[in-house]
Amino acid sequence: MKVISYNHNGTHGVGVMVDDPSEPGGFVSLSKAAPDLPHDLRAILEIDPGLDRVRAAAEGKPADMVTSDVTFDPLIREPHAIWALALNYTLHIEETGLTTSREYPQIFLRMPISQVGHEEALWAPGLKIAEAYDYEGELAVIIGKPGRHIKRENAFDHVAGYSCYNEGSVREYQSQNRQFGLGKNFERSGSFGPWLVTPDEFGDPADHTLVTRLNGIERQRAKISGMLFDVQHLICYLSEGYTLQPGDVIVSGSPGALPLRPGEKPETPRGPVVVEGQLHMRAGDVCEVEIDGLGTLSNPVIEDPTPL
Amino acid sequence: MKVISYNHNGTHGVGVMVDDPSEPGGFVSLSKAAPDLPHDLRAILEIDPGLDRVRAAAEGKPADMVTSDVTFDPLIREPHAIWALALNYTLHIEETGLTTSREYPQIFLRMPISQVGHEEALWAPGLKIAEAYDYEGELAVIIGKPGRHIKRENAFDHVAGYSCYNEGSVREYQSQNRQFGLGKNFERSGSFGPWLVTPDEFGDPADHTLVTRLNGIERQRAKISGMLFDVQHLICYLSEGYTLQPGDVIVSGSPGALPLRPGEKPETPRGPVVVEGQLHMRAGDVCEVEIDGLGTLSNPVIEDPTPL
Repeated sequence: MKVISYNHNGTHGVGVMVDDPSEPGGFVSLSKAAPDLPHDLRAILEIDPGLDRVRAAAEGKPADMVTSDVTFDPLIREPHAIWALALNYTLHIEETGLTTSREYPQIFLRMPISQVGHEEALWAPGLKIAEAYDYEGELAVIIGKPGRHIKRENAFDHVAGYSCYNEGSVREYQSQNRQFGLGKNFERSGSFGPWLVTPDEFGDPADHTLVTRLNGIERQRAKISGMLFDVQHLICYLSEGYTLQPGDVIVSGSPGALPLRPGEKPETPRGPVVVEGQLHMRAGDVCEVEIDGLGTLSNPVIEDPTPL
Repeated sequence: MKVISYNHNGTHGVGVMVDDPSEPGGFVSLSKAAPDLPHDLRAILEIDPGLDRVRAAAEGKPADMVTSDVTFDPLIREPHAIWALALNYTLHIEETGLTTSREYPQIFLRMPISQVGHEEALWAPGLKIAEAYDYEGELAVIIGKPGRHIKRENAFDHVAGYSCYNEGSVREYQSQNRQFGLGKNFERSGSFGPWLVTPDEFGDPADHTLVTRLNGIERQRAKISGMLFDVQHLICYLSEGYTLQPGDVIVSGSPGALPLRPGEKPETPRGPVVVEGQLHMRAGDVCEVEIDGLGTLSNPVIEDPTPL
């Protein structure tokens, strides 16, 4: 099952995609199919962590809306927590030359205003603010059932589904001091979607491959099995400290960059960390994060329109 | 004006304290005085950023409830963002021996489940999980009016008020890797309250003094003017990256530790950073953060009751 969060003429809703080749983009809107459910995916997960009521409500129903008539919201609009992973793929650790613990994951937080939905515009900071605005294609894990001190063998029971994430990062700010802080949290700098795919359909994340494309050209390609700390480990680790909440998001880290193609020039270094294959996102670009079995998260990039 | 967030028999509410010595703890409940306003302080700030409607609704009314009949919620129960500052007082930088930029603030995020209200129990991690659970007394700034690219001379216009914060930290987890992550986000490890004091009453934060007491004994005492980056600077800096949201919280950093008293033994070192005057919080302790003009945030400490 694929679940979307959308905005239709200013009203937020949740829908279930219908797999019907004769009507691409068709979905069942839960506001009609299940009017008793909240109109927000996090609020649904709080009362229906396994999405059983959502599945039952949509089952067998024809599409009553199409995605071209709505805009995509970030899959969870306002999660209680958005955890993100630094340096969780070996190649990315090597290419940055940075040190990280091999024993404990390196974790920081993002806030809701820093993310947009599928096909919505990402904001590249004005060039007077920062120039090194970078994509990071990542797998996002969405928590359903709450839990504390979760054992590895039960970790997947707490997952409501998976999605794609572009963990867009402003490098100058990220490297201003020791904690990433604002550099990972610029307004509309990241994206989250297009939809949640349930675990019965997706299977083990480690069996999948992640690809990031900038303007159609592959810039990242990695097996998700290459994570230093896998999804189960991250769930267990976080649950040592708090009760994972429905709708919480774990953004599981960016793989390394592919080499530049012949004739391509690397970016001018703008900080202590230089990754040769990493290109910046600029106004006019389109960035895609694709994971097989999940689909493709695609976003155009515009310059942050806020007056300085 | 002093504004509280409370829970009365499972219903959340917002109230305005009444300064009447004959009825200590008396407040005007906005659910009665202003039934049209939301029952959540963040939601109120979204429509009433200067708290003008709150003030008008409570003005001249006698108390209809007392704080002893309710429990205190964290002042903002679920802020869009809780920013926190690392190493923002000179003495604290020196005592930790850590490096930090003198040009840019060092910033990380907390999540809502990591904080409780005034008088609610803080959870010390079970000793099998971590032993170095530490207080950090801090000034919290609550944003009212949203803003982006805010100029220093306008920074205070965006402040709805101030409060106290105990930025409780689990040192073993904080030092597991380079980003603080989970170590600053254990469940019920921090506290936020007791109330919001409006800027007209509080004045310039730099004119005030912060004191932290553990079991009645002073462990931190610092002038807020000792901050490396002051409140106005932090507001301007954050607004370079995103539009500050009503109810956003800036927890402005912990001052250094006072020396131990004669005969007191320092804690056993449990990580790379050793601060001699810093004592851990343990089950049975009471920790207080007092700022003159704001009042005292007080919390008992219990052992995290979650079964391992």
